[in-house]
Amino acid sequence: MQVAFALYERFTALDAVGPYEVFNVIPGWEPVFIAERAGPVRTDFGHLALTADKALEEVPAPDILVVPGGVGSRDPGHAALVEWIRAAHETSTWTTSVCTGSLLLGAAGVLDGLRATSHWLYHDRLRELGAEPAPERVVRDGKVMTAAGVSAGIDMALELVALEAGPEVAQAAQLVIEYDPQPPFDAGSPTKAPQPIVELVTRMARQAGEL
Amino acid sequence: MQVAFALYERFTALDAVGPYEVFNVIPGWEPVFIAERAGPVRTDFGHLALTADKALEEVPAPDILVVPGGVGSRDPGHAALVEWIRAAHETSTWTTSVCTGSLLLGAAGVLDGLRATSHWLYHDRLRELGAEPAPERVVRDGKVMTAAGVSAGIDMALELVALEAGPEVAQAAQLVIEYDPQPPFDAGSPTKAPQPIVELVTRMARQAGEL
Repeated sequence: MQVAFALYERFTALDAVGPYEVFNVIPGWEPVFIAERAGPVRTDFGHLALTADKALEEVPAPDILVVPGGVGSRDPGHAALVEWIRAAHETSTWTTSVCTGSLLLGAAGVLDGLRATSHWLYHDRLRELGAEPAPERVVRDGKVMTAAGVSAGIDMALELVALEAGPEVAQAAQLVIEYDPQPPFDAGSPTKAPQPIVELVTRMARQAGEL
Repeated sequence: MQVAFALYERFTALDAVGPYEVFNVIPGWEPVFIAERAGPVRTDFGHLALTADKALEEVPAPDILVVPGGVGSRDPGHAALVEWIRAAHETSTWTTSVCTGSLLLGAAGVLDGLRATSHWLYHDRLRELGAEPAPERVVRDGKVMTAAGVSAGIDMALELVALEAGPEVAQAAQLVIEYDPQPPFDAGSPTKAPQPIVELVTRMARQAGEL
């Protein structure tokens, strides 16, 4: 099972690394990191680079494609990546995204008429791209699976492994990565965080030109 | 606030990227990835490389140090890294580890007589290194904070931000990364996973020479 992580400048590292760490421990599953050009690809604020080991055209037909989100997902100029997504989706077993990676799936026409999710700040954008925004943390519509913001990719990956390899394998993966989450606050969604925190984050995103 | 992530060959990506993604959104906090030599550093099974932007000696006194775990943490030959940890710990505000990164803290003498944690499979190893293994997911003893396996670094980072920058900032970070975990199973710790799954993972670790 070949799992391709499609990177681009200014992506969010955890969007890719969360699912990667789950898939990485499944026997026979082969993660591969790709981008328009092979080489290091910088994350959103430039403090980290992950290596794309291959160019997009070297991995034309992965079994699973994972498209991370990030500041860069809203940049123009993703023609090659969007075209790759469109073509890879035709033969994929699963087409997935994390966070605003769903905006790139949308740009590729993959989400037309489908229920899907994205980072909570970008549900309207998803609708503009032809999808029906859904409130769940992980949304499955046919072979397309989309996850909410950043950390939601871990939950998505476990669901996908359960469907593809069985619940025992998914549980073993969860135990290997000791995923027994105990956040010190219950502020991880706009319906749970205190309203002033939601307003603060929304205002900061707007000021940064992200909305 | 300079936050140094100390990488080495065969580390586990999520151990570093989980806390990085939390610290990355805190205004004024500067993540920097370092290793014995600057350049790409491969993760445990070789499928991914993260770039170390600087060599250890270029970042001698970070405010926060984060040591990830991974298969490589149990390899011999970490003399330079262990020496760097020992020296950096003398001036750090926080010295932290995720997963078996605590074995490297232990090798540096940082955990002598302290309560600490590690991946659940390695608590005995921790005791051999002079620490007192503790059952919590995130363990704080003075300025040393250790997290349990892999994904626990996210919880640790949120706790550290709350202590250092206040609970509102930590909640904002949690909301930005939409950390509202909803794993499809409750199998993320050996006390919660079905016993056959615990035995399977333990047996596989032993067969891989990891125990």
